[in-house]
Amino acid sequence: MRYSDLNKAALQAELARVKQDYEALRGHKLNLNLTRGKPETAQLALSNDMPHTLDDGNYMIDGVDARNYGELAGLPSCRKLFAEILACKPEEVILGNNASLQLMYDLIAKAYTHGLKNSVRPWAKEEKLRFLCPFPGYDRHFNVTKSFGMELIPVPLSETGPDMDLVEELVKDPSVKGMWCVPKYSNPDGYVYPLETCRRIAAMKPAAPDFALMWDNAYVIHAFDGDETPFPDMIGLCRAAGNPDLVYEFASTSKVTYAGAGISCIAASVENIQYILGLMTFQTIGPNKVNELMHIRFLKDLDHTLAHMKKHAAIMKPKFDLVCEALEREIDPLEIASWHRPRGGYFVSINLLPGTAKRVVALCKEVGVAMTGAGATYPGGVDPQDTNLRIAPSYPPLGEVRQAMEVFCTCVKLAALEKLLA
Amino acid sequence: MRYSDLNKAALQAELARVKQDYEALRGHKLNLNLTRGKPETAQLALSNDMPHTLDDGNYMIDGVDARNYGELAGLPSCRKLFAEILACKPEEVILGNNASLQLMYDLIAKAYTHGLKNSVRPWAKEEKLRFLCPFPGYDRHFNVTKSFGMELIPVPLSETGPDMDLVEELVKDPSVKGMWCVPKYSNPDGYVYPLETCRRIAAMKPAAPDFALMWDNAYVIHAFDGDETPFPDMIGLCRAAGNPDLVYEFASTSKVTYAGAGISCIAASVENIQYILGLMTFQTIGPNKVNELMHIRFLKDLDHTLAHMKKHAAIMKPKFDLVCEALEREIDPLEIASWHRPRGGYFVSINLLPGTAKRVVALCKEVGVAMTGAGATYPGGVDPQDTNLRIAPSYPPLGEVRQAMEVFCTCVKLAALEKLLA
Repeated sequence: MRYSDLNKAALQAELARVKQDYEALRGHKLNLNLTRGKPETAQLALSNDMPHTLDDGNYMIDGVDARNYGELAGLPSCRKLFAEILACKPEEVILGNNASLQLMYDLIAKAYTHGLKNSVRPWAKEEKLRFLCPFPGYDRHFNVTKSFGMELIPVPLSETGPDMDLVEELVKDPSVKGMWCVPKYSNPDGYVYPLETCRRIAAMKPAAPDFALMWDNAYVIHAFDGDETPFPDMIGLCRAAGNPDLVYEFASTSKVTYAGAGISCIAASVENIQYILGLMTFQTIGPNKVNELMHIRFLKDLDHTLAHMKKHAAIMKPKFDLVCEALEREIDPLEIASWHRPRGGYFVSINLLPGTAKRVVALCKEVGVAMTGAGATYPGGVDPQDTNLRIAPSYPPLGEVRQAMEVFCTCVKLAALEKLLA
Repeated sequence: MRYSDLNKAALQAELARVKQDYEALRGHKLNLNLTRGKPETAQLALSNDMPHTLDDGNYMIDGVDARNYGELAGLPSCRKLFAEILACKPEEVILGNNASLQLMYDLIAKAYTHGLKNSVRPWAKEEKLRFLCPFPGYDRHFNVTKSFGMELIPVPLSETGPDMDLVEELVKDPSVKGMWCVPKYSNPDGYVYPLETCRRIAAMKPAAPDFALMWDNAYVIHAFDGDETPFPDMIGLCRAAGNPDLVYEFASTSKVTYAGAGISCIAASVENIQYILGLMTFQTIGPNKVNELMHIRFLKDLDHTLAHMKKHAAIMKPKFDLVCEALEREIDPLEIASWHRPRGGYFVSINLLPGTAKRVVALCKEVGVAMTGAGATYPGGVDPQDTNLRIAPSYPPLGEVRQAMEVFCTCVKLAALEKLLA
């Protein structure tokens, strides 16, 4: 039964029926939350043996005492692990503390205050700064650049990655200083950029000599459905394309070990890394090496880390199956929304009938289900079509995801019927 | 025997004798290091029970799971501990990761990119930026402000703190945007600013509305000789003086638990804290709370922390006694240098005959003793009188400190004699 095939009377009958469902849900007095891309407690517990790696009282690693000062770029062993994860070289990696967001913010801040390696002047001295924001995307990315007063330029994102015809045109403007990307299991759609798109991005010829490709590989080993998809070394692709300094890659163990207490990294060309380390000497004595020591002893190497990720997948997959099966069963036949079934990452992104996203969030809220606000996935927080919503099923237990999806599907139908009858 | 009482022949005889001592030292082929304000291994081992506070697998504290996202300002329990240490209020504290230097850098960076709470405009948009640098002082402080292109204005520091007559005059210039202070066991002299000086600093009337008093209380509980000296709540003093937003205070557990893996804080008026948190929402998901959890369970409260510091003191005091006794025995009678015997902190600062500091460092190096470079304690790295050196005896074992001081005293004599005979 496609809603578009129904005449007005049939739509009204359906509306009456769905309204009844909705009123019944109200009676359940729910308090559910699908807003947060947080691991659930069982996922955190997968790493509870990590502190026990310090039980022998031996804090020596790589010839240094992890407890004392030193190693501005982090422990060599941990740089090597991230290099394995990103398929790059250890000397291309600098470690950070528990928030990769802080490394991203910090790179933009350094560009602003001191300039990047190839900058003509610090960005603070530029008249105008623009940044490319593929959408739907991650609000915290967009907000970093917005907080520095930059103009956010929306670029449509699809299964094949950012609209590269548009990107190649936009980067001819020297005030366009960079682009945000989550290339694998993109937030929120879960798209994996194809190799051709990665190559085309690596070969871009931006007018700005200090264009910063912000390559947030947050979910690089975060498949929950089947084996991990191999993914290219973007630093190598940029080097091969004659753009060695184009890309700044980011990753972390926030969704490998502990969301609030992992380790993170920035990876880039050796020349970029040396430049950044030169600025970092004024800023810090280096990252927490005891946390790095725990991590490297617990995660060991790429193979062992991938085996650990399978345990996360076993917890995540049933929730994503449940979300997608609810959408397929309840919404798909009506043809009032579209979505991509992700194989990794933390989100499901859904495109509703234009003009109904905000209404769905409000309807959900009224019966006790919190959704991420409509527009959050758009640069500047405004979705001009009011169509996209992000579903984050990782944190609540499976039973709550089931209840929340029942509510969500009902609200999607209700908002669509209201719209079609308006 | 004061060198100034000796005639030329007597000085020459003494020079010949000291040269013999120096040549004998050369034969020892030493490899010693007095450059680093690092805890020694035995001090780090004092905290080796810290990770065991996680043995029960319970990560809940203050109603949150320390492993997950959340708590931008850090765990309430840890904010409370730092408030006890600094004698301020928990709501005046934001926690950071393992490097308090990064919090200081970050505050200056935020002033530069976004402005502080009372800024008319971001510092990047100001024509000229100046910063007051009491000397001798900490090179990493000076370098933070230097790296942002600020002019460093030297202000003499004595046992009574910065020269406040000069400071009060200088702050009438609106381009003077702040001042660096290590108010307790100052780096490197080990002075404790008297209460009158703290009050006078708190009551300053800078022309710049966003003047930032950078109050680095790095050694607030770091007495090694006797009980801890009580120290005033600078945030309270500023509030009482009608300058509530003047001060940004910093502290850490780098020299309480682990130098490279402690926790740190910035403390300021509640209004400043709210302003900073507002900017931080774009920057990070918050500090590592598992490390905070370990810390609060291990350090418990102020009394327990002070008891822990007594264990550090027991390791530190013999080294500082040895340094000061060597200076008192070998150098004091000659009247060729002056110094202050510190009761806490990590350094001894010595003022040599003008024009001999660099020579002493070179002489020490030649026989295998590394000293912090002459000038390092001065803004811009230049000591116009070439007189001050910093001795850092914490890291080497006691036996090495003894050998190194024998070398150091011989070199001080040699350089003084060369100077007096030149």
